[in-house]
Amino acid sequence: MPNEPPLLTLTTDFGLVDEYVGVMKGVILARAPRATIVDLCHHVPPQDIRHGALLLHAARRYFPAGALHVAVVDPGVGSSRRIVLLCTESAIFLAPDNGLLTPILQEPGLQKAYAVDNAELFLHPISRTFHGRDIFAPVAAALMNGLTPDAAGPAIDPELLQRIHFPLPLIDETALTISGEIIAVDHFGNLVSNITSSHLAALGIPPRRLEVCCNAQPLGYIRHTYSEGKPGEPLALIGSRGTVEIAARNANAAVLLRASIGARVELSPAGEA
Amino acid sequence: MPNEPPLLTLTTDFGLVDEYVGVMKGVILARAPRATIVDLCHHVPPQDIRHGALLLHAARRYFPAGALHVAVVDPGVGSSRRIVLLCTESAIFLAPDNGLLTPILQEPGLQKAYAVDNAELFLHPISRTFHGRDIFAPVAAALMNGLTPDAAGPAIDPELLQRIHFPLPLIDETALTISGEIIAVDHFGNLVSNITSSHLAALGIPPRRLEVCCNAQPLGYIRHTYSEGKPGEPLALIGSRGTVEIAARNANAAVLLRASIGARVELSPAGEA
Amino acid sequence: MPNEPPLLTLTTDFGLVDEYVGVMKGVILARAPRATIVDLCHHVPPQDIRHGALLLHAARRYFPAGALHVAVVDPGVGSSRRIVLLCTESAIFLAPDNGLLTPILQEPGLQKAYAVDNAELFLHPISRTFHGRDIFAPVAAALMNGLTPDAAGPAIDPELLQRIHFPLPLIDETALTISGEIIAVDHFGNLVSNITSSHLAALGIPPRRLEVCCNAQPLGYIRHTYSEGKPGEPLALIGSRGTVEIAARNANAAVLLRASIGARVELSPAGEA
Repeated sequence: MPNEPPLLTLTTDFGLVDEYVGVMKGVILARAPRATIVDLCHHVPPQDIRHGALLLHAARRYFPAGALHVAVVDPGVGSSRRIVLLCTESAIFLAPDNGLLTPILQEPGLQKAYAVDNAELFLHPISRTFHGRDIFAPVAAALMNGLTPDAAGPAIDPELLQRIHFPLPLIDETALTISGEIIAVDHFGNLVSNITSSHLAALGIPPRRLEVCCNAQPLGYIRHTYSEGKPGEPLALIGSRGTVEIAARNANAAVLLRASIGARVELSPAGEA
Repeated sequence: MPNEPPLLTLTTDFGLVDEYVGVMKGVILARAPRATIVDLCHHVPPQDIRHGALLLHAARRYFPAGALHVAVVDPGVGSSRRIVLLCTESAIFLAPDNGLLTPILQEPGLQKAYAVDNAELFLHPISRTFHGRDIFAPVAAALMNGLTPDAAGPAIDPELLQRIHFPLPLIDETALTISGEIIAVDHFGNLVSNITSSHLAALGIPPRRLEVCCNAQPLGYIRHTYSEGKPGEPLALIGSRGTVEIAARNANAAVLLRASIGARVELSPAGEA
Repeated sequence: MPNEPPLLTLTTDFGLVDEYVGVMKGVILARAPRATIVDLCHHVPPQDIRHGALLLHAARRYFPAGALHVAVVDPGVGSSRRIVLLCTESAIFLAPDNGLLTPILQEPGLQKAYAVDNAELFLHPISRTFHGRDIFAPVAAALMNGLTPDAAGPAIDPELLQRIHFPLPLIDETALTISGEIIAVDHFGNLVSNITSSHLAALGIPPRRLEVCCNAQPLGYIRHTYSEGKPGEPLALIGSRGTVEIAARNANAAVLLRASIGARVELSPAGEA
């Protein structure tokens, strides 16, 4: 990006009530005044690595090639957990080595990783509780200014980075059923499952021939749009993350179905639910 | 704006808990890296077209001439509702054709409208649930890069755009009374009515000679500032939108008066309330 | 900052539900299109000057030298309270003269102050309720464009600016105890006290030899990191503001201890608590 302003995104569980996010931006802009900073999300639930991991994975493909994604959901701050840089073919990630990058690590393509330990880049004294300010922000600024990732610390094998478990749906190719679960609930109360379009394709049944149950409540077949449902009636469709999602036209599906993360989602051929 | 960075604002009901707003910014900045993006509001209540319409109308006059205002409060996403570009003498609006632009359409001055249907501008595949990402954002980026509005789709008559009903106050010029209602409640609990300074002027009575009642509770005459009231006591004044507003010094008027959107606001000459 | 974009921060109690913050940005960018605007915090509790003052003081050192910090927590808007510019050796502050700058005024170093009364800079008509839009924003833009502070209004003695009371801890150098209190609660439920590292140093006892009590509940000695505690167990450490903070690993200390602003924090030598 020769003549374009370098871009980084921030994803944290800091919320916006305190000065924490603003301070990170101050540290970055004091060092890299022309950087463009995009807030990806600061409302990751406190210490919820899983939420942060899914969000980062869903969002990263929409940013310019070469963007730096800084993610600080970091319950282990101050402990011996590492901070890592992960370079993929299209982006760079700066995150604690605690599983936050799990879905990125599972993507195909060449990846290189570095343990961020070059203390010359850090803000001193380094607090024990706010590495976002003292390590992540100044390292991000250095990268914005053209630092090569290998100057941040030694190369490490990406295979050795921490991973967390994400539940995968069970696919029964004989009974032609899929059993998955809700892994996120969005601002609208839409329930996002772990069943992807690819899982549906593997089953070989058109979406409109599949019956969906969520939290033991039948929802009929998979629709195209919210507006195919009646107002206030829950329905299933393929959401913007490319997964089966339970929504309700002009209403909150999570409230209607009393469902939340972990709720079961069952797909079966129409007429046999 | 020859040498200035082009500016757009975003108004959505997406909230900030998910990646949705960040993803829209990613799509825009991947295509128009020098665009300045201002968050106007992402906390429009879900599907509340009325709230979004009032907010957009109140804010738009404070932005640079030629700014693009992108508004995505879009319960009909994925249905046959159109997406439209509306060009006024001072700004451009990109929004679903669902009434969100009603107060803008009621303003005087030359306006041109276009139905946004040039799919070459869109992100493919186009999801059925997130046109903010797949249509609004890339079209906004193209406009930032100099696309002329007529390249987004065919011209349409602005008169034919969807409008929603906004209640107007009743003015009795004989009894010298105005009967209006609360149309918004802000972060501080201030109650914003639909009675404007122009309505007051039409009545021909100085604001300090008018008694205000809200939710059947008398509030005295119209003050100049919050500090004319006692702490915790509700009062009426002309708010920053140029309308009669019910507030309370260092307190929440909505809570004090148990009032919300739809509450009646009555004005009558002093001494005759 | 000859070739760098000028930077300002915004701190308000406006929240993000209404158009108020966006409108301030519109006014600024219409006049200073190349300014970089950083949101420091818009969730200062309504009218909570103390919260705003602590936050601004904690954050300002991390921003580039010469940054302008605009703070609008302004319960006296529309009254006779002044608006002031305060220039320190490293930053400029634009705020109502209501105590919001108290901790900045207590810092050492040369300071100059100006009463902002040059109405030519303001947006007209000036509303009585939204000086953020009509005074703070256009004055900030003028400063971004190179206006010298003395052109905003007459110099005034910084000693004469309003100050609010901040409780200081009581240090008993004979009994070797410190009695302080909680002055802020952050997004994670961490309880921030008014006892600084300097207070501890003055006592001459190593932090690990000091017992901490908060809200009458013993917390043991002062730890280095969150991860030294058991999950869900409250502990004391030195937080990112450089003060004694009560936290809990992966949990909310405020909830665990049923403590909030004003709760007592007592430090005494180990074994004598």
